[in-house]
Amino acid sequence: MRFDQRHLLGIEPLRPDEITTLLDLSDQYAERNRKRTPSTDVLAGMTQINMFFENSTRTQASFELAGKRLGADVMNMAMQASSIKKGETLVDTAMTLNAMRPDLLVVRHPQSGAVDLLSQKVDCAVLNAGDGRHEHPTQALLDALTIRRAKGRLHRLSIAICGDIAHSRVARSNILLLGKMENRVRLVGPPTLMPSGIAEFGVEVFEDMREGLKDVDVVMMLRLQKERMDGGFIPSEREYYHRYGLDAEKLGHAKEDAIVMHPGPMNRGVEIDGTLADDINRSVIQEQVEMGVAVRMAAMDLLARSLRARRANHNEGVMV
Amino acid sequence: MRFDQRHLLGIEPLRPDEITTLLDLSDQYAERNRKRTPSTDVLAGMTQINMFFENSTRTQASFELAGKRLGADVMNMAMQASSIKKGETLVDTAMTLNAMRPDLLVVRHPQSGAVDLLSQKVDCAVLNAGDGRHEHPTQALLDALTIRRAKGRLHRLSIAICGDIAHSRVARSNILLLGKMENRVRLVGPPTLMPSGIAEFGVEVFEDMREGLKDVDVVMMLRLQKERMDGGFIPSEREYYHRYGLDAEKLGHAKEDAIVMHPGPMNRGVEIDGTLADDINRSVIQEQVEMGVAVRMAAMDLLARSLRARRANHNEGVMV
Amino acid sequence: MRFDQRHLLGIEPLRPDEITTLLDLSDQYAERNRKRTPSTDVLAGMTQINMFFENSTRTQASFELAGKRLGADVMNMAMQASSIKKGETLVDTAMTLNAMRPDLLVVRHPQSGAVDLLSQKVDCAVLNAGDGRHEHPTQALLDALTIRRAKGRLHRLSIAICGDIAHSRVARSNILLLGKMENRVRLVGPPTLMPSGIAEFGVEVFEDMREGLKDVDVVMMLRLQKERMDGGFIPSEREYYHRYGLDAEKLGHAKEDAIVMHPGPMNRGVEIDGTLADDINRSVIQEQVEMGVAVRMAAMDLLARSLRARRANHNEGVMV
Repeated sequence: MRFDQRHLLGIEPLRPDEITTLLDLSDQYAERNRKRTPSTDVLAGMTQINMFFENSTRTQASFELAGKRLGADVMNMAMQASSIKKGETLVDTAMTLNAMRPDLLVVRHPQSGAVDLLSQKVDCAVLNAGDGRHEHPTQALLDALTIRRAKGRLHRLSIAICGDIAHSRVARSNILLLGKMENRVRLVGPPTLMPSGIAEFGVEVFEDMREGLKDVDVVMMLRLQKERMDGGFIPSEREYYHRYGLDAEKLGHAKEDAIVMHPGPMNRGVEIDGTLADDINRSVIQEQVEMGVAVRMAAMDLLARSLRARRANHNEGVMV
Repeated sequence: MRFDQRHLLGIEPLRPDEITTLLDLSDQYAERNRKRTPSTDVLAGMTQINMFFENSTRTQASFELAGKRLGADVMNMAMQASSIKKGETLVDTAMTLNAMRPDLLVVRHPQSGAVDLLSQKVDCAVLNAGDGRHEHPTQALLDALTIRRAKGRLHRLSIAICGDIAHSRVARSNILLLGKMENRVRLVGPPTLMPSGIAEFGVEVFEDMREGLKDVDVVMMLRLQKERMDGGFIPSEREYYHRYGLDAEKLGHAKEDAIVMHPGPMNRGVEIDGTLADDINRSVIQEQVEMGVAVRMAAMDLLARSLRARRANHNEGVMV
Repeated sequence: MRFDQRHLLGIEPLRPDEITTLLDLSDQYAERNRKRTPSTDVLAGMTQINMFFENSTRTQASFELAGKRLGADVMNMAMQASSIKKGETLVDTAMTLNAMRPDLLVVRHPQSGAVDLLSQKVDCAVLNAGDGRHEHPTQALLDALTIRRAKGRLHRLSIAICGDIAHSRVARSNILLLGKMENRVRLVGPPTLMPSGIAEFGVEVFEDMREGLKDVDVVMMLRLQKERMDGGFIPSEREYYHRYGLDAEKLGHAKEDAIVMHPGPMNRGVEIDGTLADDINRSVIQEQVEMGVAVRMAAMDLLARSLRARRANHNEGVMV
């Protein structure tokens, strides 16, 4: 088993074999969670700090649960109510936390690149829980695990990512991961919601849902992120649903056994038909949430191993 | 010992012998807490999630403490700051949490019936920590435990519930519980603060405090819930205290050894005289809080036993 | 080892030998933290409640981490969102928490004296995490530990406390502690930011930074607490920095090996030059944060020992 990362800042720095290592271990944790095997002590004596500069109940809960199941001491820091209001810089906040000697730092931040910057200032392992429009690696990993469990493989699949690509770090991390694992990725959505510089990603782009979904194995819907649309084009929900909302008819163009995914929280009747979202024969949306805990357990387990190995290479008492 | 419930959604579904089972176990936990016996591992390896859609520092703290003393991993979810703001439905939130495979879900919600609805969508045990004007079962159970400890029995007592009955789920759960255990319940308050359809409860109604308190064993004051009074009659605090606030003179009409209760937080000088509230010869208000932790430990212990039994009846790996 | 306090309400009630006991134990915890020695079970089975009536991410995190590393069950109560809004008094809140039988109560409150008042109403050990302009004892203790580690002693040092003394409980606790340990304390700042009745403290007062810093061993900068300045003199940041902000030139008047301290969060470019704050040859600001966790571990350890001894002196089951 190889996993040589010090932090998990994005999908970009990961090698395909590291992704496979991570997903294999996640599968083991998923089974443990299903069988309700008592918590492990993989992170016993370790301190995990969750720093969320943007609210995200579900992602924070998933990381918190993952850490507690592994025996870590978990602290949530409400960063809105924090020193930041008192004029402290992000770097000062990071240095302060670092001085408290945590082992794992889980960070969500509204600015792209903020988590990378922070990781350069601290001794502990940093997990990116979403930074601006940049990356959200554990989301891409849980999506990959869900796909691999449903399809039996994670290569040579045809996957359509649909909707608000431009504002989505989820899309970006998924495009990177699915590309590394040699899948064919299609982006489907209105041109106004496509990011610039798409060519470099090696993806196909479709404006029409029916064309975009034709014969795909996986339909990955995105959340319409109105909160990120500053001043630009905001489609009416009704019109958006009509053209880009996933319903049974549009899904009919995909393969017969195509699965439906959504990172949540869903806008039912905007991005996706509610009945379809609940159809356990097609939708794996609940499984995505479940795999989220398993993937985060695996990622923290692997990073903790790296951390322990790095510390063992230093003399006792020397700060690592 | 019999306790056949899968959830604790209200007092209504409980049999009298189940209530007794619960109170007996609560008594044991109350003794453990007094002797500061180290925490047990009754809930070790289990995950408890507290979802409070209404703020309640004291109730949430009581559940959190109860879970931690039993060895559970406890997570608090700040539901105001949650996906709900992003347009997610209650059911989606419940399904999402369920996919994280918690064991116990403690829910407070401003709408009557919301907790029942949620319990139908999840695999874990659900505890109602108060839903709208419907039920607040652990409050009624802790009140019952406090009464039983003070009076030596929980039947054939005369109990006056006084004040803002109409807006009170505490009153409703208490009326149900005290009725099941064969006590005589009186409701005392202004007609404007009485619920409609009182007849079905089998209680006596009084508008005058002195008449209502005559010869009762227990005086249970309620909080004046201004925050729930939408547009209707709002009494002036001064006038309310004059007519319905409990003081030594009014209490003089009750039995000589009558106890005084209040679910907190108190409005001193509105519902109750401050000196009387602090009089340890009459007031059991602090004991109510103490019993709250014990009752919640007992309820979660019993529900965890049901959950384990139900899971053992299924094949390994099958979702229960 | 002697430590006879029931609470840690301030530096004022501590004897010098108690301060030394506390710092010696803190040193041991600091080493354990550096070597990442697994958590201890000194507080196993004990409940620590953090009640912060003022936001303070860093102080709360430090106490939370300290408690978790010692094995306590730690609960954070968000007191803004609490019963206080419902009109409950501080004493009622304290009594309510007390009835839940916690062992350690960590309290921050905007009013001077509030923590003392609260400590008189509860059975558990109370730690003052800052009350109004009164005291912040763990901050003074962590500053003392940092000084002792850097200078090899904590007596006969010359220490300048600079800036907004009037609004600072940090300054007050530091003046008390450093005086008890027989150091020479200077206060440096504009007369408008000096407290009244300075004479009683036995300190020297300087209006000019260069004079005030002359030949001192320690330069302790304070945060400019604009949030505490109600209506009075508010200096422009630019002018303040020019006259009182610490930079290399002003520091040149202190001893060659003088250390620079700041309790954080820093206003870079207001109280202190950013480059100087980051200069690990002079600044011990990060070490202060690190020592904060160690000092809080030691304080809670010692208070827990007192608590256990007091309880052992009572009969089983008797409330202590």
